[in-house]
Amino acid sequence: MTGSAAPCTIAVDVMGGDLGPSEFIRGLLYASEELKLEANYILIGKERLLERLLKVGKLEKYLDTIQVHNATEVVDMNDKPVAAMRSKKDASMFQAIKLVKDGKADAVVSCGNTGALMAAGTIRLRPLEGVERPALGTIIPTKKTPCVVIDVGANPESNVQNLVHNAILGSNYARSALSLKSPRVGLLTIGTEDGKGNSLINETHHKLQQIDNIINYVGPVEGFQIFEGDIDVIVCDGFVGNVLLKSSEAVFKFVGKTMRDELRRNVKRMLGAALAKSAFSDMRTRLSPDNHAGAPLLGLKGNILKSHGSSNYVAIATALRIASEIVRHDMLDAIRSEIDQANKRLFEDSEPAQPE
Amino acid sequence: MTGSAAPCTIAVDVMGGDLGPSEFIRGLLYASEELKLEANYILIGKERLLERLLKVGKLEKYLDTIQVHNATEVVDMNDKPVAAMRSKKDASMFQAIKLVKDGKADAVVSCGNTGALMAAGTIRLRPLEGVERPALGTIIPTKKTPCVVIDVGANPESNVQNLVHNAILGSNYARSALSLKSPRVGLLTIGTEDGKGNSLINETHHKLQQIDNIINYVGPVEGFQIFEGDIDVIVCDGFVGNVLLKSSEAVFKFVGKTMRDELRRNVKRMLGAALAKSAFSDMRTRLSPDNHAGAPLLGLKGNILKSHGSSNYVAIATALRIASEIVRHDMLDAIRSEIDQANKRLFEDSEPAQPE
Repeated sequence: MTGSAAPCTIAVDVMGGDLGPSEFIRGLLYASEELKLEANYILIGKERLLERLLKVGKLEKYLDTIQVHNATEVVDMNDKPVAAMRSKKDASMFQAIKLVKDGKADAVVSCGNTGALMAAGTIRLRPLEGVERPALGTIIPTKKTPCVVIDVGANPESNVQNLVHNAILGSNYARSALSLKSPRVGLLTIGTEDGKGNSLINETHHKLQQIDNIINYVGPVEGFQIFEGDIDVIVCDGFVGNVLLKSSEAVFKFVGKTMRDELRRNVKRMLGAALAKSAFSDMRTRLSPDNHAGAPLLGLKGNILKSHGSSNYVAIATALRIASEIVRHDMLDAIRSEIDQANKRLFEDSEPAQPE
Repeated sequence: MTGSAAPCTIAVDVMGGDLGPSEFIRGLLYASEELKLEANYILIGKERLLERLLKVGKLEKYLDTIQVHNATEVVDMNDKPVAAMRSKKDASMFQAIKLVKDGKADAVVSCGNTGALMAAGTIRLRPLEGVERPALGTIIPTKKTPCVVIDVGANPESNVQNLVHNAILGSNYARSALSLKSPRVGLLTIGTEDGKGNSLINETHHKLQQIDNIINYVGPVEGFQIFEGDIDVIVCDGFVGNVLLKSSEAVFKFVGKTMRDELRRNVKRMLGAALAKSAFSDMRTRLSPDNHAGAPLLGLKGNILKSHGSSNYVAIATALRIASEIVRHDMLDAIRSEIDQANKRLFEDSEPAQPE
């Protein structure tokens, strides 16, 4: 696997985030100044607005790496994905995907409507050969190093082959985004005793054992192990992964709210909280998704990174950095090759023969 | 629905908990003194040990409500359920279930091996007429009042009928254990937009809409809504529910550990933490499962409550209280009647005709 030496080009849909296009400008500056990221950018959005923002964005030094691509429309959070693809052809998100399809950019970064991004990504870029369904990965913090969870919602009705592919996709993403050489891949299940789990998981487990030369498969993992940090890639169905992700975020918020309530209950506690204030903000930083933002839609013939709708400039810069890593690692080539090997070993007999 | 006036009889498997039989004696005392619970108890375990513990347990006032039933064996956490049923016939857990089967007790409370309790409960007591698979419920804290999650692991491969039954089982459990008249029942799904979720969930949703005179069905809910406290019963498949439960517990612990680490980082923070100490312990109490302990295996011809292996006396007393509530509410009769109505309305055509 050889990385490209030239800086990559990232198509940035600047219209989709909750904080507006100016947050992207700050994200670009942060990526360039703080993360020392070397990349070229095509900013897609309302041209005049972007040119005005670039003028005041302290980006003078970097302007030769930045192009603006006009797009007159915006996909909003309430748009139905397929309907939006028909009615808003000039939306920034769709234009960004088109730039990748046309070979003018190496990756898309967008904070927009997830459903629309998945639909347009899948329909316009198409899945890689041998991949039936793309999967949405994400990175979560743990007690040790962060880990990838895949799928968190693209495919809520997975079969064994989909889950095996998720394992390969997630393993490759962890190599690029987390700089791991041989990420430890676990299959999410329930109670390892007595053949618990279900038939989908048991069958997937047997298949994954057969490709342990392709991925570093370490076996089934239970829900309570996820945050221990001993697994780098948690493989699951999109339904389970989405429930896991959303409910974990909900628990974080719930604990935070309960703690704030309790700390405000009397003066002594408030004084204690004031003294320990920096501990709480450090805790938030450690648990914050900002440092790992960028959920890729994996398994397509192009790189698409979804960043959270409420991404701030740090999260945006991180997504830009991850996009650049993915390109540098030639992730798509590696995925294509590993999927091909796995399909040949595991699924060739049960699949209809491919026309020559 | 008329409740029985006479106190119920609870078969208590005192051998299964991590903290040993003496914790059950403390739990009995707490239930009687603090919760003012009026019930009869059959304690199942090693007779001599129990008699010695009862002598020193400050339970003089209540001794006429307590019987001891000798059982020479114990199911341990590593026992395989079905193997244990064959090799440890005189285990306290199995004897407790037998007392319910023989009509000598109204409910079982056990902290023992969940798999063995589920297997023995299902095989010995049998599912209620019309119920195909029992489900494990549990109660979790939320920002407002606690809620029931069902199924958290009994049936990791649910069909539409199983999920509809889970809704009825959970609704009845919430009525008894949470004293709610008309519990709000939600179906756990992912992204409500664009018919997301999966076909199992979408079909279940349509079925649940048709029995909204039996349960108070409020529609699909997403992972992030679980801890808001606006839903009283979260219905899901046993695989999803188990992942949800285990990962949520893991997040609680992870946040707690991160906070402790940060608070110990310097003297100022440690001083703050010392001043705010009571806030943290109050937070733990609010989020603790002890006040809601007791996960019932629902859908059987008998009442079985599983309490956490590490249950302390408060959790044990709570399980005893909930067991008594379930009996008082004639929960089994109510479930039988509602399952029958739902099956007639929703599944009669697709089911083989019952012999008259």
